[in-house]
Amino acid sequence: MKTVEITGENFRYEVNIDEGLRFKWPRLFSNEWQSEWTRIMVISDDAVAAHYLDDVIRAAPEETPVSSFIVPSGEQAKSFSWYEEGLTACLTHGLDRNSVILALGGGVVGDLAGFIAATYMRGISFIQMPSTFLAHDSSVGGKTGINHPLGKNMVGAFHQPAGVVYDTSMLQTLPEKEWRSGFSEAVKHGYIQRPAFLSWLKEHVQEMEDLKQADLSEILARSIHVKAGIVREDTFESGVRAFLNFGHTMGHALEKHLGYGKVTHGEAVASGMIYAMTVARHLGYQGLDPEVEADWLKNFGYEPWLFQQFDPQALLEAMKKDKKTEAAEVRMVLLEETGLPIKVPVRDEDLLKCMSEPKGKR
Amino acid sequence: MKTVEITGENFRYEVNIDEGLRFKWPRLFSNEWQSEWTRIMVISDDAVAAHYLDDVIRAAPEETPVSSFIVPSGEQAKSFSWYEEGLTACLTHGLDRNSVILALGGGVVGDLAGFIAATYMRGISFIQMPSTFLAHDSSVGGKTGINHPLGKNMVGAFHQPAGVVYDTSMLQTLPEKEWRSGFSEAVKHGYIQRPAFLSWLKEHVQEMEDLKQADLSEILARSIHVKAGIVREDTFESGVRAFLNFGHTMGHALEKHLGYGKVTHGEAVASGMIYAMTVARHLGYQGLDPEVEADWLKNFGYEPWLFQQFDPQALLEAMKKDKKTEAAEVRMVLLEETGLPIKVPVRDEDLLKCMSEPKGKR
Repeated sequence: MKTVEITGENFRYEVNIDEGLRFKWPRLFSNEWQSEWTRIMVISDDAVAAHYLDDVIRAAPEETPVSSFIVPSGEQAKSFSWYEEGLTACLTHGLDRNSVILALGGGVVGDLAGFIAATYMRGISFIQMPSTFLAHDSSVGGKTGINHPLGKNMVGAFHQPAGVVYDTSMLQTLPEKEWRSGFSEAVKHGYIQRPAFLSWLKEHVQEMEDLKQADLSEILARSIHVKAGIVREDTFESGVRAFLNFGHTMGHALEKHLGYGKVTHGEAVASGMIYAMTVARHLGYQGLDPEVEADWLKNFGYEPWLFQQFDPQALLEAMKKDKKTEAAEVRMVLLEETGLPIKVPVRDEDLLKCMSEPKGKR
Repeated sequence: MKTVEITGENFRYEVNIDEGLRFKWPRLFSNEWQSEWTRIMVISDDAVAAHYLDDVIRAAPEETPVSSFIVPSGEQAKSFSWYEEGLTACLTHGLDRNSVILALGGGVVGDLAGFIAATYMRGISFIQMPSTFLAHDSSVGGKTGINHPLGKNMVGAFHQPAGVVYDTSMLQTLPEKEWRSGFSEAVKHGYIQRPAFLSWLKEHVQEMEDLKQADLSEILARSIHVKAGIVREDTFESGVRAFLNFGHTMGHALEKHLGYGKVTHGEAVASGMIYAMTVARHLGYQGLDPEVEADWLKNFGYEPWLFQQFDPQALLEAMKKDKKTEAAEVRMVLLEETGLPIKVPVRDEDLLKCMSEPKGKR
């Protein structure tokens, strides 16, 4: 089992990563805390629940009553109505301040369940049990929330979990698309952190087959370790945590422009990172060579130059509606070199130019 | 001007109390912070807005755009639908992470606006500008939230304001009922704190007329000072902060049983405090003499023995649905003596007995 400790000003919890943890997850928490639990509410989606809900419930402490609340799978569950229904379920099942919510699923379930936990009776404890590769990123750091019809993740709270239980055997059945989506955030952690993790990654995984054969818990632990360092320094995203948005300015714009679900989050971010490298070079930073990195990413099935396929003006508008944009000017995270991210304002004309030139890189 | 400082593990802000602060409220905040404001959103209710909204907006920094969002007055505004509408207003008016929400109104507006601020883009700053006596209690300490159809204040967050601006001239037009409601929480602070504040209070205000003639900012500052001490020690209500619920077990039960709005919160709490003293004596604590305290409270127009007028069984059931009840047994805050609160479980039969005996105390 791999363990990464996540700490901040007033929290400390563990991410535990191993095969089969869903069968024995309570062991990861103290008996003292467990003896206080009045009830467990497992929140999951129908796809994940069909496979793993029974295992998780069966492993719960015998003396603690367990309820469950199942939402439809997909982004639609991060809505006001599912949020309200979840709170209603907590009330009708009699959860009190010593009850625990267990989020069993991918990023959507983690965000929704975390926000329910953050606001039920002004906040109760919750445990993250991610079921996807991508969720190794979102399950750590305490960002929770739902979508507003006018924008993604516009409503939410910072609420740290009491622990993250990562059962890697749940990832084996994921489709390749989902592996790609998750691996992209690991690569991002490689880019924004001093070279160690990126070198290690490139040495160990050159293509998709390598990734599937690799020691997954090792990759996840190393990737989470990078994020842990950033969360420790800046829990509320007022400074360096913004670097985690590397690749996300264009990434979000692509998701929005194509319509959510048409491209996975990580696939969009992969292209967004290549775009950010292109912008950095254009502005005179040495940064990383986008062509070299794009070639590596292609081996995993990414489309690094995806951003060149659409109307630049439309992508620019999508960027400007992103909530990280505090003013009219787009501020992007760029790399001066590997592990040296900076946040800089970029003029519209530069943004547009980098979307269309040089053509034919694909 | 009176100033009380509120501090906790990771926050520090001021409560400033004076006449006419609504005309000059920005002076209470640093120029540095104000220069970061991208927009101000004033959230208020129609009754308060009719009197004071213009003054507040006119006082805002010239260069900062101001929007407003007005809800109907009364408890109904603490609903999911007004919460969602408020978030929508923030989005359509273009609030970003450097925008500020200003809550202008009583406890309802403060709770709703605070919860919107707590969850808009995972939390933005807000300023409390209480317009009632009662809100001297709720505006301090960071409790925010809305009601769920199945229970009051079931959904919310701890989110500290950046400051509390208390313009006492806004209180002068309040009906007597509202003075009573607010004064009750001040009396509560007197009961649960070492004798100083209670003695001072009894010395200075013997009846309603005294209260109206008194130096209001002095009373408010002293009352808030008691609360500040408790919030500093226990921001998230895991310990001593529960003592602030003195009188609230029966108080909430009365409000619920009579229907919200039939009796003011403070009037219900006043009777709840006398009930708690009755229970303490019944259980063998010396505590305070409920008859002596009831006589003092009557001078202000309270009905201290209100709890004797209803079906004990119905009140007991209402108590048990209170969210502070972690188990089947009711846990109440009692006084061993003035300033010495304790939290103890009380058996149903004792609770019932103290509601009906001895009769005729009124």
